[in-house]
Amino acid sequence: MITVWNEYRHERRSEQVAKIYPEGMHNLLAQVLKTAGYHVQTATLDEPEHGLTQDVLNKTDVLLWWGHTAHNEVSDEVVERVCQRVLQGMGLVVLHSGHFSKPFKKLMGTTCNLKWRGAGEKERLWVVEPSHPITRGIPEYFELPQEEMYGERFDIPKPDEVVFISWFPGGEVFRSGCTFTRGLGKIFYFAPGHETYPTYHDPIVQKVIVNAVAWAEPSGGPAPTFGNFQPLEAGLTK
Amino acid sequence: MITVWNEYRHERRSEQVAKIYPEGMHNLLAQVLKTAGYHVQTATLDEPEHGLTQDVLNKTDVLLWWGHTAHNEVSDEVVERVCQRVLQGMGLVVLHSGHFSKPFKKLMGTTCNLKWRGAGEKERLWVVEPSHPITRGIPEYFELPQEEMYGERFDIPKPDEVVFISWFPGGEVFRSGCTFTRGLGKIFYFAPGHETYPTYHDPIVQKVIVNAVAWAEPSGGPAPTFGNFQPLEAGLTK
Amino acid sequence: MITVWNEYRHERRSEQVAKIYPEGMHNLLAQVLKTAGYHVQTATLDEPEHGLTQDVLNKTDVLLWWGHTAHNEVSDEVVERVCQRVLQGMGLVVLHSGHFSKPFKKLMGTTCNLKWRGAGEKERLWVVEPSHPITRGIPEYFELPQEEMYGERFDIPKPDEVVFISWFPGGEVFRSGCTFTRGLGKIFYFAPGHETYPTYHDPIVQKVIVNAVAWAEPSGGPAPTFGNFQPLEAGLTK
Amino acid sequence: MITVWNEYRHERRSEQVAKIYPEGMHNLLAQVLKTAGYHVQTATLDEPEHGLTQDVLNKTDVLLWWGHTAHNEVSDEVVERVCQRVLQGMGLVVLHSGHFSKPFKKLMGTTCNLKWRGAGEKERLWVVEPSHPITRGIPEYFELPQEEMYGERFDIPKPDEVVFISWFPGGEVFRSGCTFTRGLGKIFYFAPGHETYPTYHDPIVQKVIVNAVAWAEPSGGPAPTFGNFQPLEAGLTK
Repeated sequence: MITVWNEYRHERRSEQVAKIYPEGMHNLLAQVLKTAGYHVQTATLDEPEHGLTQDVLNKTDVLLWWGHTAHNEVSDEVVERVCQRVLQGMGLVVLHSGHFSKPFKKLMGTTCNLKWRGAGEKERLWVVEPSHPITRGIPEYFELPQEEMYGERFDIPKPDEVVFISWFPGGEVFRSGCTFTRGLGKIFYFAPGHETYPTYHDPIVQKVIVNAVAWAEPSGGPAPTFGNFQPLEAGLTK
Repeated sequence: MITVWNEYRHERRSEQVAKIYPEGMHNLLAQVLKTAGYHVQTATLDEPEHGLTQDVLNKTDVLLWWGHTAHNEVSDEVVERVCQRVLQGMGLVVLHSGHFSKPFKKLMGTTCNLKWRGAGEKERLWVVEPSHPITRGIPEYFELPQEEMYGERFDIPKPDEVVFISWFPGGEVFRSGCTFTRGLGKIFYFAPGHETYPTYHDPIVQKVIVNAVAWAEPSGGPAPTFGNFQPLEAGLTK
Repeated sequence: MITVWNEYRHERRSEQVAKIYPEGMHNLLAQVLKTAGYHVQTATLDEPEHGLTQDVLNKTDVLLWWGHTAHNEVSDEVVERVCQRVLQGMGLVVLHSGHFSKPFKKLMGTTCNLKWRGAGEKERLWVVEPSHPITRGIPEYFELPQEEMYGERFDIPKPDEVVFISWFPGGEVFRSGCTFTRGLGKIFYFAPGHETYPTYHDPIVQKVIVNAVAWAEPSGGPAPTFGNFQPLEAGLTK
Repeated sequence: MITVWNEYRHERRSEQVAKIYPEGMHNLLAQVLKTAGYHVQTATLDEPEHGLTQDVLNKTDVLLWWGHTAHNEVSDEVVERVCQRVLQGMGLVVLHSGHFSKPFKKLMGTTCNLKWRGAGEKERLWVVEPSHPITRGIPEYFELPQEEMYGERFDIPKPDEVVFISWFPGGEVFRSGCTFTRGLGKIFYFAPGHETYPTYHDPIVQKVIVNAVAWAEPSGGPAPTFGNFQPLEAGLTK
């Protein structure tokens, strides 16, 4: 099961955003993922427990996260729950302004700060790691005619893989597609997606997100045991 | 298509090895991969062009490589061909003494040297990166009752991921499951598999190899263009 | 300035530990670092603000951290202060049971859990990354006759570098020397150092710690600016 | 001892280049490094053994390499010698078009290909890893008014660290400062330095190179032993 989480405030408060995402970004992304063959559900900030009960999370293989204006309204209890599930193997795809979300910052251990500018500039994303499955079917570079500029220094730990680097006409660069692992969970941060531009309608962006979900699914690897441990080699430890 | 390459000398020259792998390691591994649903072919050193014609390699998604006593008999032309295909996206699973094979050394750029001891000791492999798909269905640790000891320092570039670390009773450790990327190709080195022990009959070892093949399949990412490149932003470059 | 922080409880409560470290581990380590030419101060849990006032931290280039029984007594305010200073460039050397300290867990974003056994077993540490400056003057492997076993899976993010891997006679392995970066700060985790064994009297262990402090010193790199950013290329962003 | 190696052809054949580097790039860089306190010697392609005898290399702590038009004239024997010394711990700083030099390609195991354009465009280099000592004293970004464009995809193995990413007005990005380790040796690739622009006169570029040399110096770590190895734990291996 894939769960698309959205703050879902802009779409209800701004006519401009509502025109682009009349049913909310989450429903658009859910539709994209359903078309790709996934079972998908959505959850939003203003639902009880933000729609992320323990039961919902337990059944979630990959969680997508879009948040922007209300990071601080996300309860610490739900954040803890999300992070624990990531450590247990749930995939996490963090979108755009989700770089400042509580779960992402907690899992990274850094400020996750960056430069930004809301000027509707072109963003060009270059594939720098074409061996990565997230680049399946993606051209060598692709462009979004209007996006928010996100620029380096992006204060994240060294990513496991930098899949995309973005170019902006104002003179900035950005590691716009980065993978991380935390516990058994795989995390993909993908920068595009400002609410006032139709980024998630872009078919290449959609393909990146579908690929990211496939990549982030639980590995099926062993849940480690921790704590006091008896020697496996009896008699060797005297 | 998966191609299992084997030097196929020990099995024909040593009764001890022939008892363990009467049809050669390659045919056992091919059978394991067929059972897992793959199309599989085999190739061996003493075939013309070592069985690795350009056509065979072009159709190969993942190549498995086992060699030991005759690394130097592998022609440089075939080695170059294999390496080029890896850079183009073919996966490569290098087994045991293949650490000293020409393709692996060429792709690593280091000596790939290590410590070794042929004393039939127990090897215990610990999963250290359970988020990795190669660990799907693998227990937290597993043991091979008899293996050749391979010990650190293993002279390889920093792996992308260290998936397994081995323990040996004589006092050594070894990064026994390591991933790398070169060009568009994914490479997995897996240490167990000395010819005088029935390692490739072990169901967990078989599962690791099946998982590794799935992981190493071509990403489907974009083949980059290189060379002289016209500006994408006309008029910006004065 | 180097600051050695110690919980300093075992040494005052246990005769066994007091015999090994009559003036506390912190004073022994401070002496080692002074001999190596550093300016060193110490700080302990039971001092006001645990001895880690903002002023002390601001002047600290590298902080060493040893804690075990009282992680929860470290105030969140001081933890936050320590983490902020790491992000600003202060080095952090986390010793032994400090894997469970609040600052380390916060900077890692994972549980930092592991296997352990207090049986006074031999620990053998293998250098696996001899290109790293922390290995200067260290032999290929070295042994501690008695240590606490720490075993994999160690639930940390993929380290930047795995410098040491430990072998234990009971059958375990452990990534016992790992580097990380968070913000501008460099972090080294070093596993040996159980309070009931004279580990920090060992000259090789001392050399590792001196090397780690040298490596972890602030890089002198640029403090990034964040937030709303004007285009550097005027006229390009229309 | 630092050895600056230069192809030294452009400076002798092109008036334009000779005006910028009247005594050759190697002598300028040697002067910069001497001023920084290093013992420095130079070597060039047309000297016997390209100036890189075994004795010269044995005494070299860090080798700088600039080559462009005559990569194929470098003898394989000298290339092998250089690579062996890197594996033994000699640092290697590869400059600009040295991305296509034989030693760099051999140590990387990939094509090291890239996009390029000789249009005298501005290059802006962003520090993305300010924790790295190579960024000491370097501003958050710096610009070269005229450089050759080098653009992604840069076909190198995943670098240990991406220290700089470059922006070009034509729409490209490039990982222009990358570190690698091979054996005991540390390698830094630094992209700027086309012969027709006065790049190595730039004080920030000079500082990067001085920092890189300091970083690349031999670690002093242990030279590993390889081959047949007796068990350290007698009696445990039955």
